[in-house]
Amino acid sequence: MPNPTAAMLVIGDEILSGRTKDANMHHLAGALTEIGIDLKEVRVVSDDAPAIVGAVKALSAGFDHVFTSGGIGPTHDDITADCIAEAFGTSIDVRDDARALLRAHYDRNGMELNSARLRMARIPDGASLIDNPVSIAPGFKLENVHVMAGVPSVFQAMVATVLPTLVGGAPLISRSLRVTRGEGDIAGPLGVFAQNHSDLSVGSYPFQKDGVYGANIVVRGTDADRLDRAMETLSEIFAT
Amino acid sequence: MPNPTAAMLVIGDEILSGRTKDANMHHLAGALTEIGIDLKEVRVVSDDAPAIVGAVKALSAGFDHVFTSGGIGPTHDDITADCIAEAFGTSIDVRDDARALLRAHYDRNGMELNSARLRMARIPDGASLIDNPVSIAPGFKLENVHVMAGVPSVFQAMVATVLPTLVGGAPLISRSLRVTRGEGDIAGPLGVFAQNHSDLSVGSYPFQKDGVYGANIVVRGTDADRLDRAMETLSEIFAT
Repeated sequence: MPNPTAAMLVIGDEILSGRTKDANMHHLAGALTEIGIDLKEVRVVSDDAPAIVGAVKALSAGFDHVFTSGGIGPTHDDITADCIAEAFGTSIDVRDDARALLRAHYDRNGMELNSARLRMARIPDGASLIDNPVSIAPGFKLENVHVMAGVPSVFQAMVATVLPTLVGGAPLISRSLRVTRGEGDIAGPLGVFAQNHSDLSVGSYPFQKDGVYGANIVVRGTDADRLDRAMETLSEIFAT
Repeated sequence: MPNPTAAMLVIGDEILSGRTKDANMHHLAGALTEIGIDLKEVRVVSDDAPAIVGAVKALSAGFDHVFTSGGIGPTHDDITADCIAEAFGTSIDVRDDARALLRAHYDRNGMELNSARLRMARIPDGASLIDNPVSIAPGFKLENVHVMAGVPSVFQAMVATVLPTLVGGAPLISRSLRVTRGEGDIAGPLGVFAQNHSDLSVGSYPFQKDGVYGANIVVRGTDADRLDRAMETLSEIFAT
């Protein structure tokens, strides 16, 4: 049975303008690979409602799971929750359970639950909340879309909450071999190797550093023994 | 007149599996912002022909310029050039000008232009070549799609070749103010500020580090004087 598939939607002008480097994609990719869910596509869009709504619809229809990051804070540019509601044609308003979480948190800290903070309790109808142990304001899940914060520490905490609830497939194991020869020399024998190991995924990732050309050959599969045997063969091919 | 728009397509299993962190997105985003081309969307897809062809068609139709990275080397998993040809319904074969570049390079270095390396001279009909000063094998431009290498040093060299040929708009200038207060306290007055400066883009990017909550407020626009005045107002608002 093939592994479940996933897509990620990163929401944020700050990444598209080059101001910030996204850190959440790499974290989610690694975490999904570990539990056997195949991340097939990532999209980064700006804080623009039609772009967000369109991407949510396309990714939700195309993949088993969707994970979003960003745009669920209290400021005027946080429009993700409203866009998710629009994408699924459902209503959205401040919800009692989310408000209660926020009220308890701000009461505890002697802070006011003002109207801006209350925006973070706006949850689309029918969604279930995702726990936020870092800064309380919850994420949520609607249909197959998990809506999470953009701040990396909060995003990672939410991923840690969500992933154990998902049924993964066979974790993908990877082995790699570093070959310090140009890809053009590697390509012929590697192509034959890939054909002879069509049950495995064989990738070549070239590097070029300080005048040295080479490639990391990465072989991926779900059977560790099979992978080990394949890597022995590969080492023999490129031993000379 | 609004700025030209752009999208980027990153091709590579290694990023979706979490093995590698993409570095090209951040570089291209910054370079485009400098010349006034608005990067509106980034997609990352795997080394899978239908996924690449579909993304190329969608992005080419939706934006003024498209930039791809990855998948143009000599190995069996380098399928980008063939996918671009398929997306535009054009034929592809080894082309004389590209072959001549490669032959001269490998002759100079006493290396063989074998059949794997010759794959890098496969260029879709009607495309123009993009110079590769680092490792010679060219990228190419077909319609509004610029096809470039994934190795960061080569990608950056190709970006440096391509961008001066494009007509940009007004470069987007950004100013930021770091406020060490929770976004919930900032949100109200910031929303009013954003409404009063609707010609500028106003974003709030929260951080949370060592127990300190705060946000970087980023204001973007094309008129430096206007931005400076807006930042003075913003500083006054959050001075207390």
